[in-house]
Amino acid sequence: MIKNKSDAGIPKGFLFSVAEAAIKKPGRKDIALIYSESEANIAGAFTTNKVKAAPVRLDIEKISSGKGQAILVNSGNANACTGMKGMQDAVETAELVSKNLKIEPSLVYVCSTGVIGTPLPMDRIRPVIAELSKNLGKSNLDKVASAIMTTDTFPKIVKKKVKIKNKTGTIVGICKGAGMICPNMATMLCFILTDIAVEEKTLNKALRDSVKKSFNRITIDGDMSTNDTALIMANGMLGNPELNEKSAAYEIFKKTLDKITYELSKLIVKDGEGATKLIEIEVKGAVNEKAAEKAAFEVANSNLVKTAVYGNDANWGRIMAALGYSGIDFFEDKTAIQLGNIRVTERGVGTGKDSEANKYLKNNREVKILINLNSGNASAKVLTCDLTEEYVRVNAEYRT
Amino acid sequence: MIKNKSDAGIPKGFLFSVAEAAIKKPGRKDIALIYSESEANIAGAFTTNKVKAAPVRLDIEKISSGKGQAILVNSGNANACTGMKGMQDAVETAELVSKNLKIEPSLVYVCSTGVIGTPLPMDRIRPVIAELSKNLGKSNLDKVASAIMTTDTFPKIVKKKVKIKNKTGTIVGICKGAGMICPNMATMLCFILTDIAVEEKTLNKALRDSVKKSFNRITIDGDMSTNDTALIMANGMLGNPELNEKSAAYEIFKKTLDKITYELSKLIVKDGEGATKLIEIEVKGAVNEKAAEKAAFEVANSNLVKTAVYGNDANWGRIMAALGYSGIDFFEDKTAIQLGNIRVTERGVGTGKDSEANKYLKNNREVKILINLNSGNASAKVLTCDLTEEYVRVNAEYRT
Repeated sequence: MIKNKSDAGIPKGFLFSVAEAAIKKPGRKDIALIYSESEANIAGAFTTNKVKAAPVRLDIEKISSGKGQAILVNSGNANACTGMKGMQDAVETAELVSKNLKIEPSLVYVCSTGVIGTPLPMDRIRPVIAELSKNLGKSNLDKVASAIMTTDTFPKIVKKKVKIKNKTGTIVGICKGAGMICPNMATMLCFILTDIAVEEKTLNKALRDSVKKSFNRITIDGDMSTNDTALIMANGMLGNPELNEKSAAYEIFKKTLDKITYELSKLIVKDGEGATKLIEIEVKGAVNEKAAEKAAFEVANSNLVKTAVYGNDANWGRIMAALGYSGIDFFEDKTAIQLGNIRVTERGVGTGKDSEANKYLKNNREVKILINLNSGNASAKVLTCDLTEEYVRVNAEYRT
Repeated sequence: MIKNKSDAGIPKGFLFSVAEAAIKKPGRKDIALIYSESEANIAGAFTTNKVKAAPVRLDIEKISSGKGQAILVNSGNANACTGMKGMQDAVETAELVSKNLKIEPSLVYVCSTGVIGTPLPMDRIRPVIAELSKNLGKSNLDKVASAIMTTDTFPKIVKKKVKIKNKTGTIVGICKGAGMICPNMATMLCFILTDIAVEEKTLNKALRDSVKKSFNRITIDGDMSTNDTALIMANGMLGNPELNEKSAAYEIFKKTLDKITYELSKLIVKDGEGATKLIEIEVKGAVNEKAAEKAAFEVANSNLVKTAVYGNDANWGRIMAALGYSGIDFFEDKTAIQLGNIRVTERGVGTGKDSEANKYLKNNREVKILINLNSGNASAKVLTCDLTEEYVRVNAEYRT
């Protein structure tokens, strides 16, 4: 195989292809296949929404085996709220992939993202599966990252190298988000691929922990998708002894994985529908981590806070109010709020630096809101974006 | 006193006045006084936000007495997050009113609505208190309803008569809301006045129960204000024997009160910032009322549902998704959804009537979303409005 530029940073043994199935409408590649030349260990994290898309339910069943070799992903249709028919379609597509790749159906995972409530156009999907299987190649990862987009405005890829003794392993992650992080109910899909050998249970634990502090700490509009899925495949083709939690190299593997999921999360929020600003909200001094997380999420999900940031208005009163209705234990008169380095609130009252803080908001596309509750030692960080007229426009017109 | 048109439907013994204190900016009447010629029974319901404005904290202290005679209300400044100074200002304004009206300070309640975190401009408020006391008149209720507005686009008044044996009592309610029902953190203020004699505890219970199914079942953006207050004053000047829960006339009194709070709630939602549509969400067939309420609120607070309604898009998948993340117990495949009379979802899947439902949304300014979970007998209704570009605009520019 001739190595080209796009091969750079692709883990060993992974191949990719894309095709056009005109799922929502014609004119773009909207279906993609990810394939590992050897059977891989696999782990997954899925939406906790009670309404789960058919592919999510199917993948949850399969993933208990801990093994996988292929992932088929389509955009344009979520295959959610599609009843028995939806499940049959998910099973059939996985089986078609398994036949074409000559691997067990249990090793094929399916993911969908897009409109809810409309059955998959199976007559247009069936014919392209063979094409996808034939066209697999090492240099198509970028195309996969584009094919899985819905309202995303740019593909999201993060690649990292990990040194394991005398070998250099690779981890790549791609994802789609946009919308509202549960955008149009099709939300976040993330695929992480590595040639590093990682023991099944360790892989599962590493993914769960990593997702908790990345994808689970971002919010665009507070809605949660029926399709959210993060899968990690480790095919071991680097040839290292399988990592477990006691391995010397586990820590660097885990740190790298955390960096990848955090960077991908940040890319998702940056690409929030209509967003003009990335907002990092950190709550410190909470009585426990749960309280810190709850408070940070309430502030992040407040439409009033989000529109204020959009309008470059250091309206810290809206932040105080969101803390107030979050339900956590805290004291108004102990609370301090900073926008960037500018302390706007001290002991619960204004410091008179609002106009300075307005300037900070105006001059930055990435803004930090730091809240210190001064009531304990726990903290949590949540990423979100501002709420704009464009968000409304995109979501009012999504299906039209 | 010469009776004029505006006196019609004003309960006996209540007088009103307004003045300009240029609280946020000059050019409008922004402070109002409500006065009862005789001491009245009073009851109140207040925000559950932990961050409570100074006037809210003061009123909560006073109301345990069950007695009141005057309410001073200002718009333009919420006197919230203003620390000790804020409380001193609230106490001082109440005292000034008490001196001018020659009544006990304990009988004077104060309410504020507007921007958070800025101290009240006391130098401009002090001088107008005497003017307010002097200008009290029976025909100024409409002016009070206008003076308490912030981003409201119209004053909100509801008047009803109640027949109590051979006498005819009157109940009037005025309120301000707009924004996001916790608009700009200044939200909902409601004042209900009646000349019907109602026993203290009964009045309190009636108000609480009535608020629960009206003001507590509306949501514009899910934020909850630091200042939400509903007060009811019953001065007994009709001369009827004091009503209690066993009185024959209690039921009609309570029903009328419920109608007033529900109609006022509807007016608030209709006037939601930037709203073009009123949305009534009813969840039926839930396992219990709490679950029904939770589900209805999650749907009502979903930005995706609200933008879909704005875009006349019968995107029922977003409703399913909101039910799914509400955390309540229900079965996707038992769920039916109607928009108006059009059944768009049956047993969790689409019925193919989306284009018909799109037309329904397009042709109506008041739309109904009826969700039947088919899992029990409990139900709940929540009112909300759509989310528009105008909402974003109003809230991005509120303080500028």
